[in-house]
Amino acid sequence: MAGDALLSYAFEFIATQSTVPAENLLKVVAALGRAVGAAGLVGGQVVDLESEGKADITVDTLNFIHRHKTAALLEVSVTAGAMLMGADAAVLEKLSSYAQNIGLAFQIVDDILDITSTQAELGKSIGKDVAAQKATFPSLWGLEESKRQAQQLVEQAKQDLESFDTRNQPLLAIADYITARTH
Amino acid sequence: MAGDALLSYAFEFIATQSTVPAENLLKVVAALGRAVGAAGLVGGQVVDLESEGKADITVDTLNFIHRHKTAALLEVSVTAGAMLMGADAAVLEKLSSYAQNIGLAFQIVDDILDITSTQAELGKSIGKDVAAQKATFPSLWGLEESKRQAQQLVEQAKQDLESFDTRNQPLLAIADYITARTH
Repeated sequence: MAGDALLSYAFEFIATQSTVPAENLLKVVAALGRAVGAAGLVGGQVVDLESEGKADITVDTLNFIHRHKTAALLEVSVTAGAMLMGADAAVLEKLSSYAQNIGLAFQIVDDILDITSTQAELGKSIGKDVAAQKATFPSLWGLEESKRQAQQLVEQAKQDLESFDTRNQPLLAIADYITARTH
Repeated sequence: MAGDALLSYAFEFIATQSTVPAENLLKVVAALGRAVGAAGLVGGQVVDLESEGKADITVDTLNFIHRHKTAALLEVSVTAGAMLMGADAAVLEKLSSYAQNIGLAFQIVDDILDITSTQAELGKSIGKDVAAQKATFPSLWGLEESKRQAQQLVEQAKQDLESFDTRNQPLLAIADYITARTH
């Protein structure tokens, strides 16, 4: 019930901001609804639960899970600000692509750290995925290829923002942080 | 997760209606968020769960539970249409009062039917409240007083709509149905 209350409050909070044009607020409400619901977070979580303990999970399925569970929420977090400002479709598309790319990279790095990090460094228990027999990117690709793919997604994310002015620096720094982080 | 998906979709659905002014849609999003969240349904449900098995529940607590669990959702259902049309605060207040009154009357009648109805008539198991040791309006007031209170709330609800034109007929009929229903 705490989750239901907080979820409802997120929409109420957006809808009661009076300093932003109503049309732009509605776009954020719709995008958040999509990101959280069956086409986003919930959809990804359902496929994740259905995939547990299965030995034949493909990279496509793993991508689906993390694009929906992780990247969709990152996407609405990144694009909401632009929507509030009334950004056009071309700008939103670049920001969406950036967020999808860092979202997937974040998850690959998460899978890598679950194997290579120490518990003290990560700040949470390690080896959980292997113990739970969860399909991960390293289990499908191996460690080196997983690192390469994560790096490639981060480079792609940074290219997505190439046409923006230097105010793109914080987003570029966040992208670099994804692969640099050790916890 | 199905609940989370449907809850998110409700907000997304409202936010993507293009035939209604954005300001009015935002009012409905905010009202629905309030009705569902901590100040509405969730708040009522929390107090309801905390009250289970307690012998000293007051009428005030019972009113709180049902105003939040039942009446808040009825209220947003009744007022949303008026909000979409851009109704003014005075109209919304009358509709809110109407909905609160029939919401509470509905719950009192529900409590009464749980005692007086047969399982075949009610279409669901009876005597649940007594079995669960739940405080109900009849347990606090007795059956006759409960019936009188329900009738009084329905009369009050109909008075709330007195100043409207004859398009108030369906809402008046719904109010009468509350006390007339046997299942």
